[in-house]
Amino acid sequence: VSELLRRISELLPSEIVVTDPDLIQSYIRDESKLTEAGVPLAVLLPRTTAEVSLALASASELGIRVVTRGAGSGLSGGANAIEQCLVLSTRRMAEIVEVDPTERLLVAQPGVVTADIRTEARSHGLLYPPDPGSVAISSIGGNVATNAGGMCCVKYGVTGDYVLGLEVVLADGRVIRTGRRTVKGVAGYDLTHLFVGSEGSLGVITEVTLRLVPAPAEAHTVLATFSDVEAAGRAVQAVVRGPVTPSVFEIMDRTTLLAIEALSPLGFDESVGAVLLLQSDSLTGKEDAAVLADVCQTSGATEVAISDDPYEAHALLEARRLALPALEALGDWLLDDVCVPRSRIVDLIDVVQQVAAGERLTIGVFGHAGDGNMHPTIIFNAQNESSLSAARRAFDRITAAALHLGGTVTGEHGIGRLKTGWLLHELDSVAAQMHMTLKQAFDPSGILSPGVGLPQPD
Amino acid sequence: VSELLRRISELLPSEIVVTDPDLIQSYIRDESKLTEAGVPLAVLLPRTTAEVSLALASASELGIRVVTRGAGSGLSGGANAIEQCLVLSTRRMAEIVEVDPTERLLVAQPGVVTADIRTEARSHGLLYPPDPGSVAISSIGGNVATNAGGMCCVKYGVTGDYVLGLEVVLADGRVIRTGRRTVKGVAGYDLTHLFVGSEGSLGVITEVTLRLVPAPAEAHTVLATFSDVEAAGRAVQAVVRGPVTPSVFEIMDRTTLLAIEALSPLGFDESVGAVLLLQSDSLTGKEDAAVLADVCQTSGATEVAISDDPYEAHALLEARRLALPALEALGDWLLDDVCVPRSRIVDLIDVVQQVAAGERLTIGVFGHAGDGNMHPTIIFNAQNESSLSAARRAFDRITAAALHLGGTVTGEHGIGRLKTGWLLHELDSVAAQMHMTLKQAFDPSGILSPGVGLPQPD
Repeated sequence: VSELLRRISELLPSEIVVTDPDLIQSYIRDESKLTEAGVPLAVLLPRTTAEVSLALASASELGIRVVTRGAGSGLSGGANAIEQCLVLSTRRMAEIVEVDPTERLLVAQPGVVTADIRTEARSHGLLYPPDPGSVAISSIGGNVATNAGGMCCVKYGVTGDYVLGLEVVLADGRVIRTGRRTVKGVAGYDLTHLFVGSEGSLGVITEVTLRLVPAPAEAHTVLATFSDVEAAGRAVQAVVRGPVTPSVFEIMDRTTLLAIEALSPLGFDESVGAVLLLQSDSLTGKEDAAVLADVCQTSGATEVAISDDPYEAHALLEARRLALPALEALGDWLLDDVCVPRSRIVDLIDVVQQVAAGERLTIGVFGHAGDGNMHPTIIFNAQNESSLSAARRAFDRITAAALHLGGTVTGEHGIGRLKTGWLLHELDSVAAQMHMTLKQAFDPSGILSPGVGLPQPD
Repeated sequence: VSELLRRISELLPSEIVVTDPDLIQSYIRDESKLTEAGVPLAVLLPRTTAEVSLALASASELGIRVVTRGAGSGLSGGANAIEQCLVLSTRRMAEIVEVDPTERLLVAQPGVVTADIRTEARSHGLLYPPDPGSVAISSIGGNVATNAGGMCCVKYGVTGDYVLGLEVVLADGRVIRTGRRTVKGVAGYDLTHLFVGSEGSLGVITEVTLRLVPAPAEAHTVLATFSDVEAAGRAVQAVVRGPVTPSVFEIMDRTTLLAIEALSPLGFDESVGAVLLLQSDSLTGKEDAAVLADVCQTSGATEVAISDDPYEAHALLEARRLALPALEALGDWLLDDVCVPRSRIVDLIDVVQQVAAGERLTIGVFGHAGDGNMHPTIIFNAQNESSLSAARRAFDRITAAALHLGGTVTGEHGIGRLKTGWLLHELDSVAAQMHMTLKQAFDPSGILSPGVGLPQPD
C-alpha cells in the first residue's frame, strides 16, 4: 500500500495529494445510506485540467483505481471511496470561466456550486433551470455526471438538456472536447450525452459548457390539499392532460406533511391525505394558476389556495425542500428514487402503503408529480437488525413495483453503488452487454470508479 | 458478386430481397449532390424487426456491407449505396404502434413519414414539434438517424430532444432496447442519444418512442424586410437577446428572395436585402408578435408586417420552404449546412458574399436565424468543369469560415459522405479517435454504412 502511495506521490505535485487520515475521512462517503465504501490511499485535489490528466495517466500507469467526487452530496454511493483508491475531488476547480449573454451560454469548471451558476445567470437576466434538491451545495460537475434533476424538470427538463459540450479527461489521461458552442450541431456521435450521467465511470469532467434560457416571470403558486392520495392522483392526471405546463409540480403524502409540520408548522393535520404544490412561471402565470387551481378543485381537492406573493411561494418551496430533512428527523432513512408513468403514481403510492403496513415501517412519499419521479423514504432503526432487514425488503419491493409499473429504478439520483443489481433488471441483456462494451472502450484497465453505474449482480 | 447474392438470398425470405436492376436504381442515391454512390447487390425491404435482425446477422456472416435508408431525402449522402452492398430500406416498417395521450408519447416504426406523426399527434391535441424541410416525405427513422432539425428548433429543439427510447438492431443482428417510457430516467449510459444522429453507422433503428407536447396556440407571424443583411443581422441579435422566444425565426437573403419571387410572386424586388420571418405560437402570441415587430423596426427594418391570419402565416412558411426549390431552378446546386453562433450570422453572410463575388457564382443564403443554422446554396453549372471547381472551392471556403467563426460544419443535415473530411477538422484528435473506438465497439467488422458519418481524410 505505502509503496503505491510513494510512487503516485512521486509523479504528482505534492500540493494536490492529501494523505492525512483525518482529512481523508470526509472523502470516504457521499450522502447515500447502506452503500459500501472503503478507505482511499489518498485524496487528490487537482487545480487544472493538466493536473487531472497527469493524475489519471499516473493512476493508469500504476493500476490504481480512481473515484471522482464533486461535492459529495449524491444519494447513490457513486462518490464513495473504494479501498486503496485515489479520490479525485474537483472542488479546487471552481471558476466560472465565461458567460456569453448573447449566445446564452456559460462555461464553468466542475467544482462550481450549482446555485452560483444560477445566480450568475440571473445577473444577466438569464436562467440556468436545473435545481436539484442539493442545488445549494452540489457542484455542476457532479450534476452533469449524474444528470441531476430537481423541481424544474416538469417544464425545463434535466441537467443534460442544458449541456452543450464538455471537456473530459479519459482514463489514460488524454483530454477530449465534446459538443459545441452553437445552438444546433450534428457533427459526429453525441459523446457529450454519453458522459452526462455516466457517474465518473467513463472519464473525469473538467469543464462544462451550459445553455441558458431567458429568465422567467415571477411564479404564481397553487397549493391543493386532498383528503386521500387517490384524489391527488386524479388531479395529477388531469393536470398532465391539460393545456398548462406548470414549472413546478410536486406531491407530498400525509407522512411527509406531518413530518414537515413537526419541523416547520404550516397547519397540516391527520385529515390531510396529500398535497400538490404547483407553480407557473410563464407570462400567463396568473391565468395558468387559475386553470391549475380549477383542475385540482374539480379533481376533488378539499382546499385550494393561490398565491401571487413571491415570499409565500418561496416559503412553500422551502417547505417542500424540508421533506427529506423532516423525514430524517424520524429515524434512520433509506431514500428511493423511482420514476413511473404519470398515470401510475397512485398505483405506486398504493404499493408503498401496502409495503409500509406489511413491514410495519413508516414510509413517506414525496416527489416530482409532473415527472412521475417519486422518492419513497423508508424510516427504520439501523441498530435493530430486523428493522434494517425490513427496510431493505421494503426498498426492493418498491423498486420492483416501479419497474413493474413501466417505470425506471432511478429517475434522477443515478445507479451509483446502490442499484447496480437493479440496473441488471431494467436493462435487457444486449443493453447490459453494450454497457460493458462501452466501459471497456473508454476505460480498458477499469480504473475509473469500478462498481459504479454499471449493471452488476448484487 | 452473384455468388454473394446467391448466398444472402438463401438466408433471407425472397419477398424482402429486390434484385431487379430497374428497381434498384431508385435506391442508389439520396438527395445530396457531388457525393459518391455505387450499385448495390440488392435492396432489402424487411417488414419486421426479426427480418432486420436476420438480414444483419446474415450480412455479418457473409461480410457484406449494409447501408440503411429511410425515405432517401437526406442531403449529405448518408443513404447512398456502396458498390456491392445491401441497401436496407425501412419503408415497409411504417406503422404507428401506439399513441398514449396521458403519458404524451408515441411509438412508431422507422418508416412512418414524419408528417403523419405530426398529424396523429395533432388528432390527440398534442404536438410532435420537429419539422425538417423534408417533413412531408422523410421518415422518422431517418430523422432520428440524422437528428434532423427544421424551423421549430429555435423554440422546440431538434429531433433528439423528443426521442425517449429506441429499438435498434446491432451489426451482428442482436436487438437492443434503449431509453424508457417515463419522463425522466438516469439508469445506465445514454445509449439512445448515441444512436440518434449516428447515420446508420452503429445500428439500424427499428422502433422509436417519441415524447409529445401540448398543441400550441395558433401562431402570430411577423415578416420584416431589410435593405441590407447587416440590419437584419442586428435584428437577429436583438431578438435573441430579448424576452420573447419565437417559435419560427428564419432568414432569407436577396438572392433567395428573388429566386422565390420568380416561382411564387410575393412582391419582392432588387431593393430588398434580407427578410426575417418570425412566429410566436405561445398563448401570448399576439403580444409576442408586437414585441418582435418592434425589435425589427428598431433594428432598421424598412417594412414590418404582422399577420394573425393562419392562412397567410401558412403561405409565408410555404414561401420559405420554396427557398431550395427556387434556387434549384437557377441551375445545379450545392447546399451547405453550417451553424454559427447567432452573433456571427452577419459575418458568415459577409464571407458568402465575398466568395460569390470572387468565384463569380450565385450563392443564396437562407436558414434558421434563431439557431445560427445557415444554408448557403451555391448555383453552378455541373457540365462546366471550371464552374464545378469554383462551386467546390466556394463550398469549402464557406464551411471553413463557419468553423473559424466558432461554428460547426453541420447544423442539421449530418456528415454523411459529404463532410467526413470536414469532421476531421472539427473534432480534436482524441475525439476523432473515440469515434473510431465507438464504431469498433458497435460494429467490429465494419459492415454498417462504412465511410458514413465518421472522420476520414478526404
